[in-house]
This record gives sequence, C-alpha cells and structure tokens, in this order.
Amino acid sequence: MQEAIALAKKGTGRVSPNPLVGAVIVKDGEVIGRGYHEKYGQPHAERNALSSCSVSPEGADMYVTLEPCCHHGKQPPCTEAIVAAGIKRVIIGSSDPNPLVSGKGVVFLKEHGIEVEEGFMKEECDALNDIFFHYIRTGRPFVTMKYAMTMDGKIAAFTGKSKWITGEEARKHVHGERNRNTAIMVGVGTVIADDPMLTCRIEGGRNPVRIICDSRLRTPIASSLVLSTDEAPVIIATCSNDKKKAAEYIEKGCRILNVKEKDGRIDLDDLMKKLGEEKIDSILLEGGGTINWEAIKSGIVNRVQAYIAPKLLGGKDAKTPVEGKGAPSPQEAVMLGESRITKLGDDLLIESEVISDVHGNS
Amino acid sequence: MQEAIALAKKGTGRVSPNPLVGAVIVKDGEVIGRGYHEKYGQPHAERNALSSCSVSPEGADMYVTLEPCCHHGKQPPCTEAIVAAGIKRVIIGSSDPNPLVSGKGVVFLKEHGIEVEEGFMKEECDALNDIFFHYIRTGRPFVTMKYAMTMDGKIAAFTGKSKWITGEEARKHVHGERNRNTAIMVGVGTVIADDPMLTCRIEGGRNPVRIICDSRLRTPIASSLVLSTDEAPVIIATCSNDKKKAAEYIEKGCRILNVKEKDGRIDLDDLMKKLGEEKIDSILLEGGGTINWEAIKSGIVNRVQAYIAPKLLGGKDAKTPVEGKGAPSPQEAVMLGESRITKLGDDLLIESEVISDVHGNS
Repeated sequence: MQEAIALAKKGTGRVSPNPLVGAVIVKDGEVIGRGYHEKYGQPHAERNALSSCSVSPEGADMYVTLEPCCHHGKQPPCTEAIVAAGIKRVIIGSSDPNPLVSGKGVVFLKEHGIEVEEGFMKEECDALNDIFFHYIRTGRPFVTMKYAMTMDGKIAAFTGKSKWITGEEARKHVHGERNRNTAIMVGVGTVIADDPMLTCRIEGGRNPVRIICDSRLRTPIASSLVLSTDEAPVIIATCSNDKKKAAEYIEKGCRILNVKEKDGRIDLDDLMKKLGEEKIDSILLEGGGTINWEAIKSGIVNRVQAYIAPKLLGGKDAKTPVEGKGAPSPQEAVMLGESRITKLGDDLLIESEVISDVHGNS
Repeated sequence: MQEAIALAKKGTGRVSPNPLVGAVIVKDGEVIGRGYHEKYGQPHAERNALSSCSVSPEGADMYVTLEPCCHHGKQPPCTEAIVAAGIKRVIIGSSDPNPLVSGKGVVFLKEHGIEVEEGFMKEECDALNDIFFHYIRTGRPFVTMKYAMTMDGKIAAFTGKSKWITGEEARKHVHGERNRNTAIMVGVGTVIADDPMLTCRIEGGRNPVRIICDSRLRTPIASSLVLSTDEAPVIIATCSNDKKKAAEYIEKGCRILNVKEKDGRIDLDDLMKKLGEEKIDSILLEGGGTINWEAIKSGIVNRVQAYIAPKLLGGKDAKTPVEGKGAPSPQEAVMLGESRITKLGDDLLIESEVISDVHGNS
C-alpha cells in the first residue's frame, strides 16, 4: 500500500477534480503491476496497473488507495476490469467519499466473488485526497490560506517591503503548493501593491487558475496577471456591473465572474459555490490581511499554512497576515487543529486545519 | 556526565549568579557520590559529591559539568578538595568562561598529578549555563524576550483582551521560566493595561525580581506590583527626577533605579549595565510591543521565546509582539538563529537566539 500511495502522489496537480489514486498488483509475493491515475480524463489507477502486469493478474491481490469506482464516468467502471482480470482479493485504503457511490464498488466486487479488505492504511490514504473528499462532499473548493511571516507576525515591513520574508527553500515549497492547487486567489490590493504573476515555477509544474477578488474592478489593466492570460487563466470575481470596464479585461483574455455582494464586498461564500460549479476543487489563498480576514469570517478557509522566518521586523504599522476587524477576544478566535511542522531551510512551515469558525461553531 | 547534568539542573533558580554545576564520582564502575550546587552561598557541586561518597573517593573518577574553581570566593576552592580527596581523574564538561580564571583549575589539578579530560559533552554542559556564561563575559544580564501570540501574530485582540492566548501547559511553562530567570521586566504600559503580578506560581518556585521600565513614573501606586513588594522585590527604572513621586513608591517598598535617558525613553543599555552591577544575571522580558521593539533596537535581547497558539484572532488594530517603528525591510530585520521547537499541549514554543541586531551587525 505504501507503494500505491507513492504512485498516487505522482498524479499531483494533474487529475483534479478527480482523486489521486495508486494501485499495486501482487502475485505470489511479487509485484507484477503498478499504476496510478495520471491525468484527468485518462484511465484510472486500477486499469493502468492491470495493463502494466508482467504476468497474468489472475488470482492476484490488488492494493488500491481508494475504493474502485463502479459507475460510468469519463472512464468505464474499474470494478468491471478487476472482475474481468480475475483478481482474487482487493485491499482498499479509503472508501469513496461520495455518499451516492460509497460502498457500491465493494458490493459489486463481493457479488463477483472477490475478497475485499477495507480501511487498510486508511489514514495515509485519506490524507492523499483531503481536497477531493472535501470537494465531493460540499461541492466547494478546499481553501488553504497561506502566508509567510516573521517570528513576530509580520508579512511585510512598515514600508510595505516583503521581499523576501522567507528563504529559498520555503518559497520553492510554495510553488509546489501552487502545483497542488487548482487555483490561486488574491485580493485586488495585493495585485495593486505587488503586481504578482502567481505562476508555478517548478519543473514540470502546471500553472494554477488565478483568481482576483475585485469587487469594483480596480485591477490595473497593465498588471502582470492581466497581461499573462496566455500562461494561465485569470478569473476576476466582481460585483461591478461596469460592462465597459469588464470588456477591457475580457479583451485581454480574462474571465469576469459576477458574484453577489455582501457588506460592500464580494460574497466569498457565493464565489466558492460558483467556483465549485466550475470544477475548481482547491484554492491557495495568497492574499493580504484584509481578504484573509474576510475569508476567515466567511468560514471558507479549510487549512492554514504559516511559513515562519527566524527574523523580527517589528513595526506597529507593519502588515500582519490576518487583519480586518478581527475577533474581539481569544475565546472568540478561530480555532485551529493539531499543527504539522516542517523545517524548510531556516524557516518553519506550520500547517493546521480550521476546526471552528469565527463565531465559535465547529 | 548525563547524570551530572541532570543533577546540575536541580539548582535551577537558586544558584544565581553562580553557574549550575553537577558532579558524579565513579569508582570501579560504580557511582559512589553525587552532588550539585544547590544554593548560592552554599558548597559547590564537587564538595557536595565528595562529602556524599559511600566509600573513600581515593583513586576514583569525578565527572563534573564545569571546570572546578581554584579561587577563594564564598567557598574555598574545589580543586583543593579534589586533590585532598585523592581523586585520580577529573572529566570536565565546560571550561570556566571567566577569562581571568579559565584553565587555572585544570592547571592546578594537573600540577597535583591528577589526570584531566576536558570538553567531555561540552555542548550539553555549556547549554546548562548559557545565562551564566553571558553574564560572566559581559557583566550584563541575559535577556529573553517572551511573548505568546496566535498563529497570525497577535498578542491580544483589537479590544486589548489577551486572556488567554495560550493554554494551561504553555502558561505553566512560563512560570518555569520565571523561576529560571533572576528578574522579569515589563514596560509601564503593561502594568497600566494588565496590572500583572509577575510572580512564579509553580510549586517550590521562587519569585523573580520585578522590574518596571517607567521613564516618567506613571506606574499606578495601587497596582498589584507596587502592593506586593513583600512577595518579591520591585525595581522601578526611571529617568524621572520627581523625588516626591519616587518617595511614594519607596514607601510601599519599591526600589527606584535612576537610569540615563535616550530619545525620551529609558536607555536600556544603561539599565542593563546597572542591573548587571546589582548581580541580576538574567531577565525575562514580558513586555508589550513597544518595549520589545526598544529592547530589540538597543541590542540587549539574547533570546526570543515565542509561544504560538493554534488560533487566529485577526484585527488590523490587534496588538503584535514587536511594534515601535520597526525595520524598513526584510534585509534589515533582526536575524534569529536555529529554532528549537517544543510542543506544549496544543501550543508550540519556538526558541531562538538573536544573532544579528537591527543594524545587521552580528
């Protein structure tokens, strides 16, 4: 199963909105086939593993990280291929999270005389597809709020200078995260202040869809984002009805997504619903303090990634990762779950899931 | 030596401004004596170990975390006792950091026919006495800047509410640090806002000296600190010459320490010099953002202890750990050394030494 998990990860950034899946076929104690879901629209891991077999898979065991599908989608059901190949036993990591499908694959296999073991290394297998599971269950993208701050909680000096808070290794890690997420989202403030490209600069990586929250269409028409729609799509989410202004962005290749307004800003909840409908299953939120607070307040953030540099910037007026109005007391703060810590050069990455929203509801 | 280190730690908070020292005597492969420096003014570790011996220490080995002293202080030299006891071999961890004394203990022992091995588990032994070594070398207290913040870098909500950012385990750890440090220092702003006691609430702990930086004598006369001088000393460091006001504090049992003024504030460098002269070897700085920035800017901070809670408070106006003007760019930030991470319940403690000051000098 360990190998199946490693195989599954190879599909990172290419299978969305499908899950990452790996499969390994074992016969007489030897691995005879390996496969993973390589790209959205292409064959699933199980079929790839079966077709890679060096000898006949008849009577073999299959280790697969996710319950095999039994419905016709872009690909024929994997359960049929497993039965046809004469696999004797299937060992499954995660169950299918889709309540309409969950368990049906297992039932189908059992009905066809195949032994099934479920929940093997479930935790590790589930971790592969936290994004997919969230998206399938809620229809909304999994949102990771990312920021890089100093040990005293600053994302920029009082002058606005923020290049660079963290070191090379941490910044490289961010590009890996951009590859992992289907989209990146920033507020128009960040576009105006930093004019970022938000592309994924790792070898073999693919650029995420870039989303700008811009309630009043203030994005500069000459910004790097607007001028690079040939590299990766740009979606401008807005509440503005200025058709003439919108046409200027559309002419440059941007998409305008009209969303509801809430308290004079973009209704992020409505935006998530619409992006989910567009098959955007994951968003890396790389905004500043204002949009981060709005996102936290709206309850759309699932995970926090805080890159922390061993530096002190100081400054009463230096920017911090989450601003806006804020919660009035520590009791009313947004609670995070257990932290995972990764050393990246001199910097630290602390990752944690959001477990209660700003009103104290979990 | 491991056992000698563990013994040495038992003196934590009681031997200042002496170093923590532990000693173990081994004969024929068996431990026959153990000792540590228990309290300032009382016998040193070596003498305690010798007098605890179950059999004659003649011909035995002594493991001692720090080079034995050879001068007459509050106690007679340990080297003489070691020679008199007939110890055959002495294994030493740290060298004496006092340049006037360093190496003399070893020379004395060797001249008396004792085998000496130096630098054994040096790193671990040195770590016992980072405070002492700093104090001996510079004559100034070792300053640890401590703060508790949320994952988004806030030490209080925008309302000023800060109870509690961290959980019970982290707060208990702070009390251990108060026991370890000779003094605690805060700015008058913290006294006015929070009215803290700053005592050490752990069993068997002793209260640190409490220092208030109060350039213009604004400390409320009815504050918990001023009213509790019977529990632990209170020093008010000031540039004010208001004798009448000063007399009010003195009447309550506080001490007034007059220090130089710098840019309208207390000259922290001068204050450290004066506190060093008063045998204060270590200070836990538990101030707010203003004094923290002043301390960082003055270059008096040796270590940073950031307790980080898995919470997000948000708030453009929420308080952050280091404020003041701040450094103008990440390149001009104060650099910290390698981080040590400790899990304390749900919270994290990140500790790091200051390796360059705000002007970029190391």
